[in-house]
Amino acid sequence: MLCRIMLGADGLVTPARLREFFAPRSIAVVGASETSGWARFLFASAATAGFDGPLIPVHPVHTTVFGRPATASLRDLTEPVDLAFIMAPLPAVESVLDDAAAGGVRGAVVLASGYREVGGDGHARQDHLTAHAAGHGITLLGPNCLGFLNAHARTAAFALTIPIPLVAGPVGIALQSGALASVMLGFAKAHGIGVSTLTSLGNEAMISTTDVIDYLIEDDNTKVIALFLESISDPALFAAVAAKADQADKPIVALKAGSSQAGSEAALAHTGSIAGDDAVVDAALRQFNVIRTGSIEELLSTAAVLGYSRWPRGRRMGAVTASGGACDLIADRASIDGIDIPSFSETTATAIASHLPPFADVHNPLDVTGYFLANRRTSALTAADLALAEITSDPNLDFVLFSGLTLPDARPPDETLATALEERVAWLADHLRAAPIPVIPVSYTCLDLSDYSRTVLRQHGLHVLAGIDLGVRAIGNALRWLDGRGRVGASTRTVASRPVAISGPWPEADAIELLATFRVTSVPSTVVKARTEAVEAATRFGYPVVLKISSAAVTHKSDIGGVALDLRTDQDVLAAYDRLVSVAADIDGVNVSPMRTGGVELLAGVTVDPTFGPVLAVGLGGLWVEVLNDVSLRVLPVDQAEVLRMLGDLRGLPLLTGARGQVAADLDALATTIASIGDAALSLGTALRSLEVNPLWVNGDQIEALDVLVVTQNPDIGISDIGITETGITETGVTEIGKSEIGKSEDRT
Amino acid sequence: MLCRIMLGADGLVTPARLREFFAPRSIAVVGASETSGWARFLFASAATAGFDGPLIPVHPVHTTVFGRPATASLRDLTEPVDLAFIMAPLPAVESVLDDAAAGGVRGAVVLASGYREVGGDGHARQDHLTAHAAGHGITLLGPNCLGFLNAHARTAAFALTIPIPLVAGPVGIALQSGALASVMLGFAKAHGIGVSTLTSLGNEAMISTTDVIDYLIEDDNTKVIALFLESISDPALFAAVAAKADQADKPIVALKAGSSQAGSEAALAHTGSIAGDDAVVDAALRQFNVIRTGSIEELLSTAAVLGYSRWPRGRRMGAVTASGGACDLIADRASIDGIDIPSFSETTATAIASHLPPFADVHNPLDVTGYFLANRRTSALTAADLALAEITSDPNLDFVLFSGLTLPDARPPDETLATALEERVAWLADHLRAAPIPVIPVSYTCLDLSDYSRTVLRQHGLHVLAGIDLGVRAIGNALRWLDGRGRVGASTRTVASRPVAISGPWPEADAIELLATFRVTSVPSTVVKARTEAVEAATRFGYPVVLKISSAAVTHKSDIGGVALDLRTDQDVLAAYDRLVSVAADIDGVNVSPMRTGGVELLAGVTVDPTFGPVLAVGLGGLWVEVLNDVSLRVLPVDQAEVLRMLGDLRGLPLLTGARGQVAADLDALATTIASIGDAALSLGTALRSLEVNPLWVNGDQIEALDVLVVTQNPDIGISDIGITETGITETGVTEIGKSEIGKSEDRT
Repeated sequence: MLCRIMLGADGLVTPARLREFFAPRSIAVVGASETSGWARFLFASAATAGFDGPLIPVHPVHTTVFGRPATASLRDLTEPVDLAFIMAPLPAVESVLDDAAAGGVRGAVVLASGYREVGGDGHARQDHLTAHAAGHGITLLGPNCLGFLNAHARTAAFALTIPIPLVAGPVGIALQSGALASVMLGFAKAHGIGVSTLTSLGNEAMISTTDVIDYLIEDDNTKVIALFLESISDPALFAAVAAKADQADKPIVALKAGSSQAGSEAALAHTGSIAGDDAVVDAALRQFNVIRTGSIEELLSTAAVLGYSRWPRGRRMGAVTASGGACDLIADRASIDGIDIPSFSETTATAIASHLPPFADVHNPLDVTGYFLANRRTSALTAADLALAEITSDPNLDFVLFSGLTLPDARPPDETLATALEERVAWLADHLRAAPIPVIPVSYTCLDLSDYSRTVLRQHGLHVLAGIDLGVRAIGNALRWLDGRGRVGASTRTVASRPVAISGPWPEADAIELLATFRVTSVPSTVVKARTEAVEAATRFGYPVVLKISSAAVTHKSDIGGVALDLRTDQDVLAAYDRLVSVAADIDGVNVSPMRTGGVELLAGVTVDPTFGPVLAVGLGGLWVEVLNDVSLRVLPVDQAEVLRMLGDLRGLPLLTGARGQVAADLDALATTIASIGDAALSLGTALRSLEVNPLWVNGDQIEALDVLVVTQNPDIGISDIGITETGITETGVTEIGKSEIGKSEDRT
Repeated sequence: MLCRIMLGADGLVTPARLREFFAPRSIAVVGASETSGWARFLFASAATAGFDGPLIPVHPVHTTVFGRPATASLRDLTEPVDLAFIMAPLPAVESVLDDAAAGGVRGAVVLASGYREVGGDGHARQDHLTAHAAGHGITLLGPNCLGFLNAHARTAAFALTIPIPLVAGPVGIALQSGALASVMLGFAKAHGIGVSTLTSLGNEAMISTTDVIDYLIEDDNTKVIALFLESISDPALFAAVAAKADQADKPIVALKAGSSQAGSEAALAHTGSIAGDDAVVDAALRQFNVIRTGSIEELLSTAAVLGYSRWPRGRRMGAVTASGGACDLIADRASIDGIDIPSFSETTATAIASHLPPFADVHNPLDVTGYFLANRRTSALTAADLALAEITSDPNLDFVLFSGLTLPDARPPDETLATALEERVAWLADHLRAAPIPVIPVSYTCLDLSDYSRTVLRQHGLHVLAGIDLGVRAIGNALRWLDGRGRVGASTRTVASRPVAISGPWPEADAIELLATFRVTSVPSTVVKARTEAVEAATRFGYPVVLKISSAAVTHKSDIGGVALDLRTDQDVLAAYDRLVSVAADIDGVNVSPMRTGGVELLAGVTVDPTFGPVLAVGLGGLWVEVLNDVSLRVLPVDQAEVLRMLGDLRGLPLLTGARGQVAADLDALATTIASIGDAALSLGTALRSLEVNPLWVNGDQIEALDVLVVTQNPDIGISDIGITETGITETGVTEIGKSEIGKSEDRT
């Protein structure tokens, strides 16, 4: 926002303004010549989209382009133009914007590259371009951008191929990689997935990803939003539009590239190595209830099921096929995606049986068998159709997967057959509309629909998902989205921020005091500086005890032998003391505390992600946490309810709920403690580098931090200097660490 | 084998006999009438396959069927017939076989259902049918079977639709679910995947899955074998053909349904709950080097890459695309599949740069950018082609993924364009043949190839994988197969079997003695029956010690509080003794042993899978093993090398290799111990129910069983009776527990 306001573009990207931008009634193509592939694509795309408004080539030399009379400049326009698609080379772009302004044009797409994406000077060049457009009151898409299409408005300013036919439909698409736009449209066409607006975002100089999402949320033609993301540059804005989409019941589905990027570099605390970049993206998208998919096919199939089907009320699926093998494949895939396949009710089973041959085995998923193929049918309807009609009334089910709607490649030449086929489709369409629960048609494999098939299905408002594998995955994704509704942006809380004077790791006593301020209990401990004091302390706490070196300079004490566990006698303590004081140079003393046994050890740690800001990681099991990577992450802030969901994510959860004779942990108290650890981290404001409690020990309702590490950076002091300890908590004002603040990075463009 | 020999069918299913069976030059269709959908499909399929031999309807009533003159009986044939496709109803099938024999027919397919698949009498009916056919010397496919096609021999006896055109190629297919055959052929057609022989296996009365695999191994037209499996009925035979395929360098790829089946029921030992049915199938298939896939699309794409591409020598992939987004998707998917994407060599990078616009960023994966689209090209070749030519010489790479071979839906109407396009394909085909490393073309998404595209690609011997997601998965699968070559059936070893007189859990002393026979060391221990003896024992071992109840009746001691750990004093021992003797009724005494601390605890357990026989599970970490399910499984026998691979499968491996300050375990010694535990289990022969060491403690080179549970069943004694202890090891003869023996179940048909 800052950037946009600075560049004067704030009023130019509102949903209302973008509604106008994405539905131009007249388009000028500046710099279009017949030798340009881009121009050829653009004119062809406009035709494919059905654009019938003025489409005017603008060129200083050519008088006609692709048979259309050209104008020399936007200043010479004889009719009003809504949008200029600027193909001019980089040095000419700003003067073309001057011409556009003079010609009354309010929108522009800039194709030229050589801006932010080249680094260096490119940043300044892009800022200049944006400010220039904003100064003229022009809304600008790009630069380095291939344009957009709007299928409902029958318009396109799009310098790539649009596969024919372009079908208008419920899926709004925005891509941070323009070259994949045609690829997406190709898959959408092949599977009868209709598009509302598709936008190639380019460098997002003025119109950003979040602006387009905001526009799509308010666009009545868009029921679901599909994104191809390379990066999330402004998580706070993204969180805000995600919350708006959640309120508006508009699902967002994303393909986020970059899952293979190397994790963050070696960090001071362990949390860094388990909270890698992509794991944080994953966690953030889940908090936004943006459903992440793994391929273009899965992205569009998920958008299709959310855009075309009525939404199921639950996870209980019925399935109808004509193949036992397909039943197995459906059940296997459903099991992976957490979709239940309950038994049919007795009434349903009896009703189904009346439509099937006597040897058929009536269970869910249902194989109606190929028996009916053996004999010419007397009705247009198949056994699958009749069974389906029974199943949609089953009270045990929330929806039905139907794999009986595969149409032939072409209309049957036999008119009787063709009529019967089309009667059947009409009957199914009526039945699906009237059925008490949603029915989701799916084909067997991901084959393109034929032209005939797409036409017939569209005529009847039907949609068929692209094969069992993609189809069931897509349904699983849709159910995840449905489950996550209503929670986006829910945990906004305020945390007092405090001044921090330390740069580097904190002395443990200070860290313990910080936790105490947030009502997080640490194991009792004392730092001693002599071997006799160690024995006195041990006697006071009672045996067994633990000795650890106390040193702000050593962050991984156990790795250098700086911890002595389970000491039972005075002799043990003396020997351990003597050993510990010699393992490192920078030792402030030796920390003595009672040994905790039994119970379960967790890690609760906060690191700072360069994009998303403070991130909380919760994992089970000391050493095991990194080896097994059984960790749940969230972008802060989180409340107790969200921490309970984090604990629910852990594979090791049964260890906390009393499995195998363990004492069950008080999960509510544990979640409160962990949420408080998150608050303690947030209280350090921008000085926070990491705060890690490891282990956090829980035994029933006893919850204690056994070790804590806090690292901060005071911007006025280098991180390598150890500053003066600041232990007093001064509340210097309350910062709202909510949606609008999380993840703000200092250098945002 | 037993079954087949009993039924007299042994010589009828050899690869040589099946070569004749699957290439009939004349086919009779018995029971064919025009009202039968099956008959209609069969005649159409024969035509699609290009069958031009005699195709003779046989019907007692009709004189013509689909325009062909019909014969009343197989006894009336006027010309020799190789194969009878029997559509007659069940009661008539055996008499049709009599007619076939009289008519000199040597092969039959039986469509009728009502045999083994209906249970009950069906088994006997099927055995009778098989013996009847065998008695006539007839090779029989089915019953309950839709037939087969052989694309190279241009023949089909197939009662389902074959999508047109049927292309002959390298992929042999066998399905245990016939109805999916057309679905598979549809996907194969859409992606230009040629088929050799496809077989619907039906009930496998005579010709079994393994027979067909054996035939496909010896079939020169088949380069790769693709299976749809519902069950593996004879693991020993399956292992034998898998070893033969391995020797012959014929990859086997499988889609095994049933991954969602509920795991085995509550078992006496923990191993049961972690070695679920499907996990065992998974392990067995890996031991067979049969590559398991998750969908029909993945199955056929994997078969295609192995059937059409030259095989890479390693995992280092180069990639060429015209989209940065596609590069990201390729990198993400490759990372999941363990495919490396190294940097280009400097020489390659310099050479590539000369073909690209100056702003292009030259790295692997390579985006040649859409720049060349902007200007009409002067050559038929694209920047992607020229870059590819450089990349195939890069010494850093083992193969190249090429996404630049997407052809238009139809031949361009402009002859110059069309010629240039086809010149380009020819150039690429030549280049791919001559390139030093394999080049694997892949499209962007899983779209059908157009007829034009398939024709042009086939003319040039090219194949394009179905999209980045499936394509890279398929390559990952192929690399897994390549890695696994040469190890199938390698670990054949002999284990002495011994008589077992116990039915039920063994007293621990006997179990320890069994382990000792196999050089597996247990922690020292003694069973005491008085509290003072407990203190004496503890003093002898040295503190701290562990007390456990000694009771053959209690198998999960810790769950009922039957274990007292870390006892440090005489008082501790006395208190623990008093507590333990009261926790259960059936206590033989109290077991005292020294407490082991530090090190790592594993589980090594053997259970008996109903299909595959004894299965070894190895997991890390006591309680954690079940909660985190970090377990590796193998069907026994295994040798030390295989156990080392099992340890390598574990997520927790770093705990054994010295991560985070742990003592590194002696992995060779550990693997030897675990292999010996497997041998100890095998020595119990068919009496074995489970043998579990949990924990198996390892600390450097110190390896000890801390607890062991052996459960056997003497067939002469009920499992609930505790028999007389048998501690003497009598070697009563050596059984070879190798490929031909594993997993033999008593009741095999």
